[in-house]
Amino acid sequence: MFGLGPIGCSIARLAMTRNSQIEIVGAVDSNAKLIGKDLGDILGQEKTGIKIQRNGKALYKNADIVLHATTSFLASAKSQLLEFCRYGLDVVSTCEELAYPWYDNRLIAEEIDFAAKMNNVTLLGTGVNPGFVLDALAVTLSGVCENVSEIRATRILDAAKRRLPFQSKVGIGLSQEKFKQKVKSGNFGHIGLPESIAMTSAAMGMDVDRIDERIYPKIATSSVKTKHFGVVRKGKVIGLVQDAHAYSKSKRIATYHIEMYAGAKDPYDEIELIGVPNISLRIPSGTPGDIATAAIVVNSVPRVVESRSGLMTVKDLRPASSLFTTS
Amino acid sequence: MFGLGPIGCSIARLAMTRNSQIEIVGAVDSNAKLIGKDLGDILGQEKTGIKIQRNGKALYKNADIVLHATTSFLASAKSQLLEFCRYGLDVVSTCEELAYPWYDNRLIAEEIDFAAKMNNVTLLGTGVNPGFVLDALAVTLSGVCENVSEIRATRILDAAKRRLPFQSKVGIGLSQEKFKQKVKSGNFGHIGLPESIAMTSAAMGMDVDRIDERIYPKIATSSVKTKHFGVVRKGKVIGLVQDAHAYSKSKRIATYHIEMYAGAKDPYDEIELIGVPNISLRIPSGTPGDIATAAIVVNSVPRVVESRSGLMTVKDLRPASSLFTTS
Repeated sequence: MFGLGPIGCSIARLAMTRNSQIEIVGAVDSNAKLIGKDLGDILGQEKTGIKIQRNGKALYKNADIVLHATTSFLASAKSQLLEFCRYGLDVVSTCEELAYPWYDNRLIAEEIDFAAKMNNVTLLGTGVNPGFVLDALAVTLSGVCENVSEIRATRILDAAKRRLPFQSKVGIGLSQEKFKQKVKSGNFGHIGLPESIAMTSAAMGMDVDRIDERIYPKIATSSVKTKHFGVVRKGKVIGLVQDAHAYSKSKRIATYHIEMYAGAKDPYDEIELIGVPNISLRIPSGTPGDIATAAIVVNSVPRVVESRSGLMTVKDLRPASSLFTTS
Repeated sequence: MFGLGPIGCSIARLAMTRNSQIEIVGAVDSNAKLIGKDLGDILGQEKTGIKIQRNGKALYKNADIVLHATTSFLASAKSQLLEFCRYGLDVVSTCEELAYPWYDNRLIAEEIDFAAKMNNVTLLGTGVNPGFVLDALAVTLSGVCENVSEIRATRILDAAKRRLPFQSKVGIGLSQEKFKQKVKSGNFGHIGLPESIAMTSAAMGMDVDRIDERIYPKIATSSVKTKHFGVVRKGKVIGLVQDAHAYSKSKRIATYHIEMYAGAKDPYDEIELIGVPNISLRIPSGTPGDIATAAIVVNSVPRVVESRSGLMTVKDLRPASSLFTTS
């Protein structure tokens, strides 16, 4: 286990229930408050005998695979990922930019892919978004189309009950002015839309030339209760709207729209393919982000372990599947 | 191209548009009326120079893969499939019972899998159903679940405009008495429900002990117009309802329900997973069977050609993806 924030802890809790497939042999986090503590204490469970360590090097020889949840950004994750490769470890990572890095981070992608192949390991970046709703599902749905001319994808989610880092990243509680500044500074909002679009396009044999992405604040029209920011009053930011349009040879091939804000009344995920035939797919209530991210990471372990080596994406691997409960 | 009924012809037409990936080098059918004719004439297109042959043996040396659409039943397809293996050909087949033969046809499955591995070829049975809606999509959706305790799947489709063999197999125009006789005789109704259920269950690590399948007639409550059976009057059969319940250790793990009849007002496909979390997915209007079957067969060519050898199922391979049109 590498990274024990809220998502890393959810991954660890689920992994511990999969004892027919997975044995946790070590846990790493950079947070000084966690180092030396028992993993079980951090997860709110029984003691495990596994102490959180600052550095993974002493653990790698006992491990086959790293479940990695530290950052959305590939530039930050890169040195960790290359270290895993050198130590011969497969990787499933929640790093959003790893989901399909050949568009925005091609050089890093090639470096990691090369290191993976040299060391005969497999890396996969996945999660709900990117990694499932707006890419894997879109690619899968396209399988029944003769051809596709445009992908439209929508994800509306209620941010009111999400984890703190998520509520922060969508700007809950900010003033409109502060929100604008954050958008200008970059690295704000949902990370991964260009990755989802470029992956889906690549699966369908199309190179994306340009992706225009815009982020707008969603403003409270009345007071809204949130889990980590208390009551957000009218006029303040309760989340964001993010749009991306992708073009290939100046033809629009993808329109992605996401709304992530506290109090969204009718959350859903939708993929619409314009083509022969036109076809759409809808997940009423939407895919629940935090549970589902941990699930797809843990469910990806078998497909990553069995895969040929290299930096893979969800379009390259068989679907991750859950397990039936026997209870 | 092996088998040039309505589905085989749709596959051939689509394959001919994929000239960056696929070149048709031969065509086989057992229908005496077709033998010797030009494939283009059969497809209602320009001449191709490819004459339909009774036997494929002379063609195999020029081929890499067979697109096979002759029968729903594995016992009928088996000798053809084994011949393809011996000649070193990959196969994508619409044979419903090939989609996941380890439940109802385990011995044949093992024989074909062995022949495939000995000859270093890959076989895949796919289509819309089985092969996509009620299995691949269910497995894919399960990826975001911590666990699943039951799968519920529904497919409602309007049979009024489907191809003749489809309208026949759902009993359109039969009397209720004749319908009951057909059901008793076996080999009637939709083929593939046990295959879809057993594949989905296997992907989630559960063996199915028993599948109870029932077929009921759908009776016209007023006159219904159909493509191949004209107007079907009140009291006659306009299609069927088919239910399957699957059990593992006497616990119900799957409930599948399909309705295929002329005049269905609100067609849709739906997968519902009971688990953590509960999640469902809906395709409004449903996946259009005939177009989509040809599409997923042709879209499966790359994933089959690149696969390791053996008898594969859609749970084992990356998603089939369509191609973007450039027009």
